[in-house]
Amino acid sequence: MKEQNKIPYKIYLEENEMPKQYYNVRADMKKKPAPLLNPGTLEPMTAEELSGVFCEELVKQELDDTTAYFDIPEEVQDFYKMYRPSPLVRAYCLEEKLQTPAKIYYKFEGNNTSGSHKLNSAITQAYYAKKQGLRGVTTETGAGQWGTALSMACAYLGLDCDVYMVKVSYEQKPFRREVMRTYGANVTPSPSDTTEVGKKILAEHPGTTGSLGCAISEAVEAATSREGYRYVLGSVLSQVLLHQSVIGLEAKTAMDKYGIKPDVIIGCAGGGSNLGGLISPFMGEKLRGEQDYQFIAVEPASCPSLTRGKYVYDFCDTGMVCPLAKMYTLGSGFIPSANHAGGLRYHGMSSIVSELYDQGLIEARSVEQTEVFKAAEEFARVEGILPAPESSHAIKVAIDEALKCKETGEEKTILFGLTGTGYFDLKAYENYNNGTMGDYIPTDEELQKGLAGVPNFPGNEIK
Amino acid sequence: MKEQNKIPYKIYLEENEMPKQYYNVRADMKKKPAPLLNPGTLEPMTAEELSGVFCEELVKQELDDTTAYFDIPEEVQDFYKMYRPSPLVRAYCLEEKLQTPAKIYYKFEGNNTSGSHKLNSAITQAYYAKKQGLRGVTTETGAGQWGTALSMACAYLGLDCDVYMVKVSYEQKPFRREVMRTYGANVTPSPSDTTEVGKKILAEHPGTTGSLGCAISEAVEAATSREGYRYVLGSVLSQVLLHQSVIGLEAKTAMDKYGIKPDVIIGCAGGGSNLGGLISPFMGEKLRGEQDYQFIAVEPASCPSLTRGKYVYDFCDTGMVCPLAKMYTLGSGFIPSANHAGGLRYHGMSSIVSELYDQGLIEARSVEQTEVFKAAEEFARVEGILPAPESSHAIKVAIDEALKCKETGEEKTILFGLTGTGYFDLKAYENYNNGTMGDYIPTDEELQKGLAGVPNFPGNEIK
Repeated sequence: MKEQNKIPYKIYLEENEMPKQYYNVRADMKKKPAPLLNPGTLEPMTAEELSGVFCEELVKQELDDTTAYFDIPEEVQDFYKMYRPSPLVRAYCLEEKLQTPAKIYYKFEGNNTSGSHKLNSAITQAYYAKKQGLRGVTTETGAGQWGTALSMACAYLGLDCDVYMVKVSYEQKPFRREVMRTYGANVTPSPSDTTEVGKKILAEHPGTTGSLGCAISEAVEAATSREGYRYVLGSVLSQVLLHQSVIGLEAKTAMDKYGIKPDVIIGCAGGGSNLGGLISPFMGEKLRGEQDYQFIAVEPASCPSLTRGKYVYDFCDTGMVCPLAKMYTLGSGFIPSANHAGGLRYHGMSSIVSELYDQGLIEARSVEQTEVFKAAEEFARVEGILPAPESSHAIKVAIDEALKCKETGEEKTILFGLTGTGYFDLKAYENYNNGTMGDYIPTDEELQKGLAGVPNFPGNEIK
Repeated sequence: MKEQNKIPYKIYLEENEMPKQYYNVRADMKKKPAPLLNPGTLEPMTAEELSGVFCEELVKQELDDTTAYFDIPEEVQDFYKMYRPSPLVRAYCLEEKLQTPAKIYYKFEGNNTSGSHKLNSAITQAYYAKKQGLRGVTTETGAGQWGTALSMACAYLGLDCDVYMVKVSYEQKPFRREVMRTYGANVTPSPSDTTEVGKKILAEHPGTTGSLGCAISEAVEAATSREGYRYVLGSVLSQVLLHQSVIGLEAKTAMDKYGIKPDVIIGCAGGGSNLGGLISPFMGEKLRGEQDYQFIAVEPASCPSLTRGKYVYDFCDTGMVCPLAKMYTLGSGFIPSANHAGGLRYHGMSSIVSELYDQGLIEARSVEQTEVFKAAEEFARVEGILPAPESSHAIKVAIDEALKCKETGEEKTILFGLTGTGYFDLKAYENYNNGTMGDYIPTDEELQKGLAGVPNFPGNEIK
């Protein structure tokens, strides 16, 4: 075991050191992320328009790009205390295994039943729904982490929770479904005949196994067609990144306590919720010119929105019922190859992350999944934790960076986000163990096909 | 949210407060647990005899009933730092839900990839195997928690790990199997044709789906028939309870820090490893007359070794290759009804727990599984954590005790062991959610049939 320099394996903050406010990185961005547009008028969405879909307080948070801090409601702080602070872990064993001079840290968000960081925003969104006097919320889920998180939050607050689960996951991941049911959620395989948009999709594509974009459309309809319901979303939106800033704030407080400055900060990126949350307070320092950091977003080569997508306004869902968002996108019709395991399969990227990336403040790398699972296994064997496939994208690049340090002799400090655990992804691990996992990189032609669905209006041309 | 009296939701010890020694409760027992016997000679097993099966250092620990403290090897302390200290949680939300004046605490051992407390002993046993220069270890696993724990420990230390997994679990719990494979273990469904005892059982019972006792026999043979291997066991043995004392020691240190004295300490009991580990330091105080506590062992009504078994010498395994142990037993041929979900299915009970129970120092209760799952769901919805079915036995009785306090107005402090998470038990939760879970209490006749297999020699008669 390596000399420890008094840094413990795991740094837990005391409860009174936990963040009491979320940090809104948009406040420190000179060039702000582009606003959501009404797809009919192409005008920025107003609070009034959005409040038919989202809770009022969340609409305020969504539209506010100047207020730097938002109070975390006390009830949410109490809920956080059940599973937070999450540990900031010094990866001594991984460093030893890699024989690297780099110092590796990870913020581990998997120590809760939803198995990921998603719970951080689920409770806040459910809390504001409850406060508004609503009966319940609707949402979609793919792999099931978000749906589980929301079910947990709603069970705690006594809210109805209707989850539209992508049909292929509903059938292939019965265990995630049962966790949600144990927390009292209604779980419907999507597309379903419970919504008009679902019926339409079923009529047009009989036998379809569904997609995230299609489940979003159903969940939005289920929220807007009934009294007392609103729709909530687990990623992409600016409000979600705001809530997820709790990850970065805790990490930064823990590092500050021990005088540690990260040189490189790495996160996996699907919709951008974890990455955006983890980097927010560090990015704030960078934007204010106080400190420099290198930020790396890691995405799957099979769903490469940052590295191969276009930065334009696009639909957020298949049914095109949601506002338009400006983001790095592969087109709302893009569906990753069936070979793709785990999450990080959304066609677009959070507008905050997209704008930061466009300004060159974040780098992006795409990685293939067999090398991701190789990194996952290596990590699991020395650090103990079986990581989620999503999180393992960050592990892969953290290992790459640590090995570069080994070559150059640099003693860089690396921080990455370990968003969750892989207990519900063992089918993918089984494929990897059996050597039957493949890689797939979409061709330029396939990407063009997806991008053809991007709405065409002046200023939004695909170049 | 209830007034908090400055007790945080979760108490984490600092790394330097973690135990550096295990506590051996036998040292403080005036009447010691009965020794293991050689089934051939009926004489106490010698260190020499045992060292063909177990590692030398572990044999010393197994036989030593007078040394109160054993150093935890530094390498094991380092490994513990990856997932320990485990939190001592104040169940504020459960108290609020129950509207009880009782104060409820639980020591949560599920925050590691094995999903349970089993890792605490797996690493120590693997460490001594490594230190002895062995190539690897063999073991059996039922539901898979112990096999996963041992695989993790062996991956970390670079030891071979051969796991005999009860065939029905191997087939019905492919995910547990894949976790073990990800950690590099060889997993063989038991009974198998890789051992003589396995071949014999297969010939006599073609098509059998296996049992824990049968997998133990195979694992012992696989260890003793090759150079460089030893057998390790996840419960029942006194060495395992010694290692698991880390649970109780941490819990006691955390409680002492805040001046909390538990009145009632509750643990689920299968082989006794968690219960024995949790209660050890508290029982030490009781045995030394320093402090009184109420201890409650909770077992399934479908496998009621303490409440309906006999306290005699019995075989530890089906193949009868292991030493005889004096314990509360249902007979080595007893197999719980197919309807029984989860672990806690071993026919016997740790000789330490058995002796303490026989002396009236521990109470025992048996509970039926539908009420256990009801308690599990209630707990999950307010405390967030999805508990393992095993742990939920303790939850059930903790809730019962808290509701008694509500009736009487007593402000008792209740501590229970939350041994693990239920992420791999969702088939059972599904049955519960669908209302298809049943209960089964074995008849007296069935129990007599099991007990008929107990060896008959002078002083060992079933009364």
